[in-house]
Amino acid sequence: MNKQFFTWLEETQRKNNSLVCVGLDIDLSKTPEIINKEEDPVFFFNKQIIDATKDLVGCYKPQIAFYEALGVDGLKSLKKTVDYLHSLGIPVLVDAKRGDIDSTAKAYGKAIFDYFEFDAMTANPYMGLDSAEPLLEYKEKGIIFLGKTSNPGAKDFQDLDCGGRPLYQVVIEKMLSWNKNNNIGFVVGATYPEEMKIIREMAPDITFLIPGVGAQGGKAEDMIANGVREDGYGAIVNSSRGIIFASNGEDFAEAARQKAIELKDEINKYRS
Amino acid sequence: MNKQFFTWLEETQRKNNSLVCVGLDIDLSKTPEIINKEEDPVFFFNKQIIDATKDLVGCYKPQIAFYEALGVDGLKSLKKTVDYLHSLGIPVLVDAKRGDIDSTAKAYGKAIFDYFEFDAMTANPYMGLDSAEPLLEYKEKGIIFLGKTSNPGAKDFQDLDCGGRPLYQVVIEKMLSWNKNNNIGFVVGATYPEEMKIIREMAPDITFLIPGVGAQGGKAEDMIANGVREDGYGAIVNSSRGIIFASNGEDFAEAARQKAIELKDEINKYRS
Repeated sequence: MNKQFFTWLEETQRKNNSLVCVGLDIDLSKTPEIINKEEDPVFFFNKQIIDATKDLVGCYKPQIAFYEALGVDGLKSLKKTVDYLHSLGIPVLVDAKRGDIDSTAKAYGKAIFDYFEFDAMTANPYMGLDSAEPLLEYKEKGIIFLGKTSNPGAKDFQDLDCGGRPLYQVVIEKMLSWNKNNNIGFVVGATYPEEMKIIREMAPDITFLIPGVGAQGGKAEDMIANGVREDGYGAIVNSSRGIIFASNGEDFAEAARQKAIELKDEINKYRS
Repeated sequence: MNKQFFTWLEETQRKNNSLVCVGLDIDLSKTPEIINKEEDPVFFFNKQIIDATKDLVGCYKPQIAFYEALGVDGLKSLKKTVDYLHSLGIPVLVDAKRGDIDSTAKAYGKAIFDYFEFDAMTANPYMGLDSAEPLLEYKEKGIIFLGKTSNPGAKDFQDLDCGGRPLYQVVIEKMLSWNKNNNIGFVVGATYPEEMKIIREMAPDITFLIPGVGAQGGKAEDMIANGVREDGYGAIVNSSRGIIFASNGEDFAEAARQKAIELKDEINKYRS
């Protein structure tokens, strides 16, 4: 696919009138028994979820750790999932939070973009510009750096006072200067609405990947008020477990669809 | 293997009188032509390097990105490499720099420790305590967090003034409070000797993983003066490309051995 990720994402979001992103975070202790008789249970599960939700989303986001935990077989199923999504014309963002020195970052680029053919990835900015550059050079891909993460530990370092401003703001400002190819985004947790508002003011045009709505406690209303761009887009609202593990019975795909509809509607209620 | 990583590491270091760690950073554009006729060129290359250097090291450190870049076949070769090193009784540290929210960190633990059976891993502390805890719970494993990295971009954020001290010192201090299971280490680049000295003063007993000696410009003399523990241990001195790609001819393993001997001797000259 030669479309720039953020362009492709927004086309899909507009077509489906949805900011929802379904997180494909496979966990075989939570999936329905019924999938285990399939030759590739992981891909089967993902495909059922995708088929049931594909008209409700802007993209999908597998968290690569859950596939790595299943070893090479898990990664094979992941690659099949990416290929399947591309066959449907839907972009795929991998949550990987990679970050390393330049030669290693190049290798991660090869793995994530050339081998798996993901369209966007999350990345950790802590090691600085030379760790980001080899990824940013993939102009058609989206590189979504940690802005303010949704977890409790986000406070440990991201809120440290650095010359009168919290660290996350200094990091955001620096990352904006890296955006020569207009291909960066930020992870901004819905659990910190005040910080989200500040980051949106700092970066009015940047797309946010927003975890933390729902189970983690973030509210859709706050998220829309603080996180979306002026035009109602510029946000990828991720829900993983709340959607894909809505039921562990035979109705798992239909249950996932219902949860995705609920999230889409909840978001759009405040969006319009 | 049920030995605690740092205990096992030090036993191996003492047996071989060496702080050297060989970085198994596979790159098929730099490996000798001769390996390509093998059924598993990556494993063959690693095995030759290991057989030629195993009496000269304390551990080996594959950088997982280089295997991910080769897809599932690369990861299969990596797993075979880990198994081979364990059959020789040598510990393996994976450079992966993972860091994510707790449920994802658990999945990374499963991938790195349960599936691949690595003995230690590098991790990124930027997301805070709850991202570190699921890894720290693997008491017998080593969790080696970024202290001060060796790359130029380390200055972008790690040196930011946070209340009168650079960020990396605040992070180090916090991470020391996480060390309930005595299983943490720090990545401390040899390219920043002054900072290494300060971190050693802050953490006299912690083992440092030290990249950056040689090609990146770090000097063995400074590294020994500033980085090792008082007893001359507590340091893992990594060299990757400088050793494993010393020759791309048929003599590649012997050339790697020579480079490993040179590094070991250079370090020991200042160590004794």
